Amino acid sequence: MNPLDAADPLSSYRDLFVQFPDVTAYLDGNSLGRPLASTGERLSTFATEQWGGRLIRGWDEGWMEQGQLVGDQLGRVCLGASSGQTTIGDSTTVLLYKLVRAAVDSQKGRTEIVIDRDNFPTDRYVLEGIAAERGLTLRWIAAGDVTAERVADVVGPNTALVVLSHVAYRSGYLADVPAITAVAHDAGALILWDLCHSVGVVPTELDAWGVDLAVGCTYKYLNGGPGSPAFAYVREGLHDLVQPIKGWLGSNRPFEMGQGYEPADGIRRFLSGTPPVIGTLAMQGMIDLIEQAGIGAIRTKSVALTEFTISLVDELVPDATLASPRDADRRGSHVTIDHPAFAALVPVLWERGIIPDFRRPSGIRLGLSPLSTSFAEVELGVRAIAEAL
Amino acid sequence: MNPLDAADPLSSYRDLFVQFPDVTAYLDGNSLGRPLASTGERLSTFATEQWGGRLIRGWDEGWMEQGQLVGDQLGRVCLGASSGQTTIGDSTTVLLYKLVRAAVDSQKGRTEIVIDRDNFPTDRYVLEGIAAERGLTLRWIAAGDVTAERVADVVGPNTALVVLSHVAYRSGYLADVPAITAVAHDAGALILWDLCHSVGVVPTELDAWGVDLAVGCTYKYLNGGPGSPAFAYVREGLHDLVQPIKGWLGSNRPFEMGQGYEPADGIRRFLSGTPPVIGTLAMQGMIDLIEQAGIGAIRTKSVALTEFTISLVDELVPDATLASPRDADRRGSHVTIDHPAFAALVPVLWERGIIPDFRRPSGIRLGLSPLSTSFAEVELGVRAIAEAL
Repeated sequence: MNPLDAADPLSSYRDLFVQFPDVTAYLDGNSLGRPLASTGERLSTFATEQWGGRLIRGWDEGWMEQGQLVGDQLGRVCLGASSGQTTIGDSTTVLLYKLVRAAVDSQKGRTEIVIDRDNFPTDRYVLEGIAAERGLTLRWIAAGDVTAERVADVVGPNTALVVLSHVAYRSGYLADVPAITAVAHDAGALILWDLCHSVGVVPTELDAWGVDLAVGCTYKYLNGGPGSPAFAYVREGLHDLVQPIKGWLGSNRPFEMGQGYEPADGIRRFLSGTPPVIGTLAMQGMIDLIEQAGIGAIRTKSVALTEFTISLVDELVPDATLASPRDADRRGSHVTIDHPAFAALVPVLWERGIIPDFRRPSGIRLGLSPLSTSFAEVELGVRAIAEAL
Repeated sequence: MNPLDAADPLSSYRDLFVQFPDVTAYLDGNSLGRPLASTGERLSTFATEQWGGRLIRGWDEGWMEQGQLVGDQLGRVCLGASSGQTTIGDSTTVLLYKLVRAAVDSQKGRTEIVIDRDNFPTDRYVLEGIAAERGLTLRWIAAGDVTAERVADVVGPNTALVVLSHVAYRSGYLADVPAITAVAHDAGALILWDLCHSVGVVPTELDAWGVDLAVGCTYKYLNGGPGSPAFAYVREGLHDLVQPIKGWLGSNRPFEMGQGYEPADGIRRFLSGTPPVIGTLAMQGMIDLIEQAGIGAIRTKSVALTEFTISLVDELVPDATLASPRDADRRGSHVTIDHPAFAALVPVLWERGIIPDFRRPSGIRLGLSPLSTSFAEVELGVRAIAEAL
């Protein structure tokens, strides 16, 4: 056993995930987390017992509240959000659209949205679309790490909203949420944080930091499965915002089937259609595990895993360029390294059961999910990359 | 055995669904279809073998195309739609928002949307929201059955789009899609059909009828499970429409992660976020069954089930008012009966394992899903209602 694994207080959690012998190093937990070994049974039991047994009665017996309950637990365990502000629903893209529209539509007279060129495509595309349809201007932060100083350079009295990622999807740069949030607020702007690449692995204190809005996905470090629904956080003081997709399940009294949409009180008004109950099942097991292990302990192991990765890359793959921060305080839970040969190399690694992520044109992204990734796995992966080069 | 069941060529399909002895009559297949007995294993096998075994590689091995493949099969088996025009994704509400926006934004100079007061709340609410944000006017068809004549009375040179339900969620009235579509087209309008209450049980010929757009849910007669994703149909000639939620997975080359949204060619441009792979699994087993049984045979049994229901209600519950059409050609697969005592009665029935749907203020809706509902079950249910009254 790798001595780092022997000393790791979280090492035993790895046994709770599905493992196949042909996958010798799974280093893509930041794209798609592994299923828990219990997930299959959770899904099949739900289908047979709950769906099959309770049938339509299930909606009155908990399904309708599932998204808010899981949201509250996620808020408590991972986000630093007190209850009533977080819900599960839709996809990250759709929630982004709804929250950004709700935010900019409420900021009368402010005509600009700030975003960075290195933000994830969906964030950029959604904002470009909204800017075009609402007659707003996008103010771009040029590619590179998003610091408070760089945000301060572009916000101003016209800024309606700032949209940034907590952890950059490519570099893994970890933005200083409280400092940047304060900069946005000093300009009178609202701020929305995309937590896709941090939720479940880097703790946040959304309430304490005064964050206005956040979205994130659940299939990375929350292990919700391919295409599982996303989550939204809207701080309590903004529950008078109105989002544009006015569906029955965001309305005040959906089962009255009445004339005229009236938004529900609270976080539920940000929902639209029928809650994705089956899609929300798998993440529940992982959020339970995170609660048990503690997000602080997870962050500690995450830092140790990325430090170990970087030291191995320095030693074994010196020709690769480190595209992630060396400062652990500014780094999420993945490490990206670049080399012109990587595009050709990744399919060969995948064939051999060494599974990192690839980001064009030349990046290998090593995503480390503390409860399911061992130090031995990291070493095997980096050694395989070095050998294949 | 009920003689109607004995003569029913589809009777054996019922054994393929999960049955619990305490549910003696499930008459709400139009709200939530039963799971197939195989669904639990389909879900758990996916989690363990596909998700757990293929991990991120699964996206390259079929998950990315799942929504279009299932959409194509649904189009072929149920909709009368040739391939490349149907996809799975989002919720009905979100797809409605996207398609309605895409349609009205393309109809420059036309300022009105037509909808009926008896349409499902989400349809009405979404349209009210879009009308307000786009400066359009809603032209309402008053409550009641939606006929071609009544549609002709309200469409005109200002009509951008007509939005109607194929089968009315409360009465079960079955609209004449080809006739009404022709009326809309004669006025130069586009038409969107909501197929939530017909898909899987009433065949359509969307291509042959010239339907422009359609949406529908998959948790009723397609047995996709609580909150399963919806589907959208966009006829081939309208694939230049652009929808407003410009996410990466509706973009042309999502994995280039490039600057600037370019919509994908074809039906995929109507998607936004990461495809809901797990949520799409359960419906696949049911669409396979519908293909095997044939949608024509299913419609034949559906008509026989609703005829039998009405004859029993006439005989056993004469005080109830039939709120559904007596003409089978104008009726979907549910029968609604009204009585002032029903609000108090339904919880008692549910306790006893007789599970119809209730629609306020006083409607019992008997939803009959031909592959999982027996004639004996219908008789048991209607007798129980009569006795409880």
